[in-house]
Amino acid sequence: MPFSNFAFGRFEEATHPSTFKCFLAEFISTLIFVFAGEGSVLAFAKLTSNGDLTPAGLAAVAICHGLALFVAVSIAANISGGHVNPAVTFGLFVGGNITFVKGVVYWIAQLLGATIACLLLLLVTNGATTSPHALASGEPVYGAIILEIVITFGLVYTVYATAVDPRSKGNVGILAPLAIGLIVAANILFAGAFDGGSMNPARSFGPALVSLDFTNHWVYWVGPLLGGAIAGIVYEGLILCPPTHEPLPGVEC
Amino acid sequence: MPFSNFAFGRFEEATHPSTFKCFLAEFISTLIFVFAGEGSVLAFAKLTSNGDLTPAGLAAVAICHGLALFVAVSIAANISGGHVNPAVTFGLFVGGNITFVKGVVYWIAQLLGATIACLLLLLVTNGATTSPHALASGEPVYGAIILEIVITFGLVYTVYATAVDPRSKGNVGILAPLAIGLIVAANILFAGAFDGGSMNPARSFGPALVSLDFTNHWVYWVGPLLGGAIAGIVYEGLILCPPTHEPLPGVEC
Amino acid sequence: MPFSNFAFGRFEEATHPSTFKCFLAEFISTLIFVFAGEGSVLAFAKLTSNGDLTPAGLAAVAICHGLALFVAVSIAANISGGHVNPAVTFGLFVGGNITFVKGVVYWIAQLLGATIACLLLLLVTNGATTSPHALASGEPVYGAIILEIVITFGLVYTVYATAVDPRSKGNVGILAPLAIGLIVAANILFAGAFDGGSMNPARSFGPALVSLDFTNHWVYWVGPLLGGAIAGIVYEGLILCPPTHEPLPGVEC
Amino acid sequence: MPFSNFAFGRFEEATHPSTFKCFLAEFISTLIFVFAGEGSVLAFAKLTSNGDLTPAGLAAVAICHGLALFVAVSIAANISGGHVNPAVTFGLFVGGNITFVKGVVYWIAQLLGATIACLLLLLVTNGATTSPHALASGEPVYGAIILEIVITFGLVYTVYATAVDPRSKGNVGILAPLAIGLIVAANILFAGAFDGGSMNPARSFGPALVSLDFTNHWVYWVGPLLGGAIAGIVYEGLILCPPTHEPLPGVEC
Repeated sequence: MPFSNFAFGRFEEATHPSTFKCFLAEFISTLIFVFAGEGSVLAFAKLTSNGDLTPAGLAAVAICHGLALFVAVSIAANISGGHVNPAVTFGLFVGGNITFVKGVVYWIAQLLGATIACLLLLLVTNGATTSPHALASGEPVYGAIILEIVITFGLVYTVYATAVDPRSKGNVGILAPLAIGLIVAANILFAGAFDGGSMNPARSFGPALVSLDFTNHWVYWVGPLLGGAIAGIVYEGLILCPPTHEPLPGVEC
Repeated sequence: MPFSNFAFGRFEEATHPSTFKCFLAEFISTLIFVFAGEGSVLAFAKLTSNGDLTPAGLAAVAICHGLALFVAVSIAANISGGHVNPAVTFGLFVGGNITFVKGVVYWIAQLLGATIACLLLLLVTNGATTSPHALASGEPVYGAIILEIVITFGLVYTVYATAVDPRSKGNVGILAPLAIGLIVAANILFAGAFDGGSMNPARSFGPALVSLDFTNHWVYWVGPLLGGAIAGIVYEGLILCPPTHEPLPGVEC
Repeated sequence: MPFSNFAFGRFEEATHPSTFKCFLAEFISTLIFVFAGEGSVLAFAKLTSNGDLTPAGLAAVAICHGLALFVAVSIAANISGGHVNPAVTFGLFVGGNITFVKGVVYWIAQLLGATIACLLLLLVTNGATTSPHALASGEPVYGAIILEIVITFGLVYTVYATAVDPRSKGNVGILAPLAIGLIVAANILFAGAFDGGSMNPARSFGPALVSLDFTNHWVYWVGPLLGGAIAGIVYEGLILCPPTHEPLPGVEC
Repeated sequence: MPFSNFAFGRFEEATHPSTFKCFLAEFISTLIFVFAGEGSVLAFAKLTSNGDLTPAGLAAVAICHGLALFVAVSIAANISGGHVNPAVTFGLFVGGNITFVKGVVYWIAQLLGATIACLLLLLVTNGATTSPHALASGEPVYGAIILEIVITFGLVYTVYATAVDPRSKGNVGILAPLAIGLIVAANILFAGAFDGGSMNPARSFGPALVSLDFTNHWVYWVGPLLGGAIAGIVYEGLILCPPTHEPLPGVEC
C-alpha cells in the first residue's frame, strides 16, 4: 500500500463512528476513575483536616483506585478495550496491538476525561485543592522513576496476559478487568507511601493541570510509559511467539 | 395499539404473578442492602460513641455498601434484574428498558424494603437512631447535587455497560453484579466524606422516614434521578446504536 | 416406598464413599474458615493487647471472614456443595434440598471442623483464649436473635438465589461462592459491633466449647436456624414455583 | 521406559522453549507479588516511622498480598500454571502433578524473582531495609511451624480444589486465581500478627537474603513445605479417587 493511502486510511479511522464511540468510552471511563480516585484523596484530606497519610488512609485510597479502575475497564471493555490509561495504550502500541492514530485518539480522550474529572471535583467539593502526585519526603527522583517503571510493567503485563493473550479467553480473561484494577490497588498499597503510585500519566495529569502544579510531573510520564513499553516488548517477544496479530508496518515480533 | 388497550395491558402487567416475584425480589434485595449498609453506619457510631467519621470508618462503611449491593444485585438478577435502586430503575426507564407501570412497582418495592430495613434496625440495635444522608460541614447544596449526579451517572452507566449491553454477555456481563456493587464502594470512599454518597433515593429514604429527618432529602432524589437519566440517554443514544430493544411508544433512540 | 426401606436407604447413604468425601470436604472447609476467622479475632486482641473493638479492627475481622468463607465454599462446592454452616444445611433441608441423614452428617463435620480449628488456634498462638460470640454492651437478647435471623436469612437466601436456583447457572452462579462469602463480610461490618455477627452455629460453637463459655450460646443457634429456615421457605415457596427438585416425602413446596 | 531415557527426557524438558516460558512466567509473577507484598510492609514502616503493627496496618498488608497474588497467579495461569510459590510447586509434585525437574526450574525462578524484587525495593525506596518474616513476641517456634503448616495446607488445598480438580472447570475454576489470592489475604489477617503469615518460602527468602537476616528462616521452609505436601496427599488420596493424571513413576495415588 503506498504511503499516502496508508496515511489517508489512518485519518479515515480517526473520524469513523466507531472511533467516536471508543473516544467516548475512554473519556467516560477515565472521568469515572479519576473522579473517584482523586476524590478519595480529597476525602482523606477533609476527614483528617489535611493530616499526614496513615496506613488506614492509604488502604482507603488504594482500594478506591482499584475498585474504580476495575469498573472503568469493565464498562469500556466491549467498546474501546478499556485502556483508561495512556501507559496501557502505549504498551499496546509498542506491542503492535493498536495503531498510532487510534492511540492518539485514546490519549486525548484519557487526558480530557481526567481533566474534566478534576474540574468537577473542584465544583463538588466547594473548591478543595486537588493534589497532584508527588514524591514522599526522602524519595529520590531516580527511585520514583524506577518504581513507576516496575509497577506499570506489572499493570501492562497484566493487561497483556489477561486481555490480549488469546489463551486467556474463557478462563482468566473473564477476570481481566478485576485483575487490572486490583494490581493497581496492590501497587498503590506500597507505592502510595513513596511516590503516590500513579502508573497512569492521565491520572497524574488531571490534578497537575487543575492545580497548576507540575513539580516532577515528567516522572509520572517517563516511568509509566517506559514500564508499559517494556511489558509490551517482553510479552509479545518472549511469551507470545508467534504473535497474536498481523504485525503493523515496521513492527517485528 | 389504542391507548386504552395499552393502559389495560400495563395494569395486567402489574398484577401478573411474575410481577409479584419481581416485587418480592426487589423488596428483599433492598432490605438486605439497606440493613447492612445503614447498619454499618450504626456500627461505626456504636464503636466510636458517635465519633466523627475517620478514614478507617469511611472504608468500613464503603466496603459494606459495596459488598452488600453486589450480593443484593446478584440474588435478584435472574428474577427482577436486580435494580435495588429507584435511580437505576429510572435510568432504565428513560432508556426504554422498563415500562412505566413496572417501574412504579419496583419503586414501591425498593422504598418499602428500605423502610422495613430501617425499622428492623431500630429493633435489633435497641433503638439506635438511624442517621439519614446529610451534607458534611462546608458542603454546599449545589455541590452535593452535582456530586450525586456524577456518581449516579457512573453507577447507572455501569448497569448499562455490563448488564444491558448485549455485547457484555459471556464476558464482562458475568462480573456485572460485582461491578455495580464495587463502583458504589469506590464512589462512597470519596463522596462519603462530602455528602454521604447515596446514589440511591431508597437508601436515603428509609433512614429519613424512620428518623423523621428530611433535611435536604430532596437532594438525594434530584441528584441520583438526574444522573441515572443522563446515563440512560448517553448509553442508549451514543453507545448503543441501533438500540437493543423495541422502543417503547414515545421513546426514540 | 415402605418406611423401613426408606430408612435403610438413608442409612446406606450415610456410609457411602461419596458421603465420606462430603464429610471430609465440609470438615476441612469449616476448619479453614473458623481457623482464619476466629484467628483474626485473636490477631486483633494480640495487636491491641485485648483492646476494645475499633472500626479498623471490625473491618479486618469482617474481611477475613468474608474472604475465608468465599474460599471455603469454593473448595467444597464440587464435592459437598459447600455449606460450611449448619444454618445453611438446615435452610437447604427445610426447602427439601438435602435429606435429613445427610444433613446430620454435614452438621457433625461442621461442628468437628470448627472445634479442631479452635484447638489448633490454642496450639499455634501459645494459648491465646478464643473468645466466643457475645452480645455487645447494651444489646438485648431479643435484639441479637432478630439480628441473627435477618442476617442469616440474607445469607441463606443468597445460597438459594445463586447456587440452588437453576436460572443462576452460567451467569451469577459463577460468582455464587463470592456472593456467599461477601454477604457475610457485609453483615459482620454491621452486626459485629452488636452481637459479633455469627450467622453460623458452628462458627459460634467451636470457640464456645474450647473456652467452655456458653453464655447466650443458644442465641447463635436459634437465630441462624430460624433465619435459614425462613429463607428456605420463602425461596422455595414464593420465588421457585414450580420447585427445582423432586420433593422429599413429607415436604410440600 | 529405561531409566537413562527417562532421565534424558527430563533433561530435555528443562531446556525446552516452553520450559523457558514457564521459568519466565514464574519469575515475573513472583517478582510482581513480592515487590508489592514486601513493599506494603515497607510502606507501613515509612508511614508510621517503623511503628508497631496495628490492625489497620495488618489489613493493608494482608489485602496487598491477597490482591497481588490473585494477579500474579492470573497472569501466569495459562503459561506455567501460576504457582508463584515453592510450597505450591512442592504440593503439586507430591500429588504427582509436576515432574521433579520442572519443579526445580520453578523453584529457581521463584527464588530468583523474589530476590530481584527485594533488590529493586532497595533501589526504589532509597535503601529501606526489607524486613524478613519473624516470630512475634511470645510466639514459640513450634507454634509458628504448626501455623505455617495449617495455613499453607489451606492454600495448597485451594489450588487443588479450584485449579487441579477437573470438576472445577467451567464453574469455581474461573475464580481459582481469586480464591488462591484471597485465602492468602484471609490467612495473613490472622497469622500476620503471630509469625508474619508466609505460606511461601520464596516470599520469605527474598527479604532474608537481601537483609542477610536468616533468623528462624528454616521455619518458613519447613512449615509451608509440610503443609503443601499434606494438602497434596489428602486431596489426591482422599478427594480425587481415581486420580486425575497418569501417575508419575514411583508415585501411587
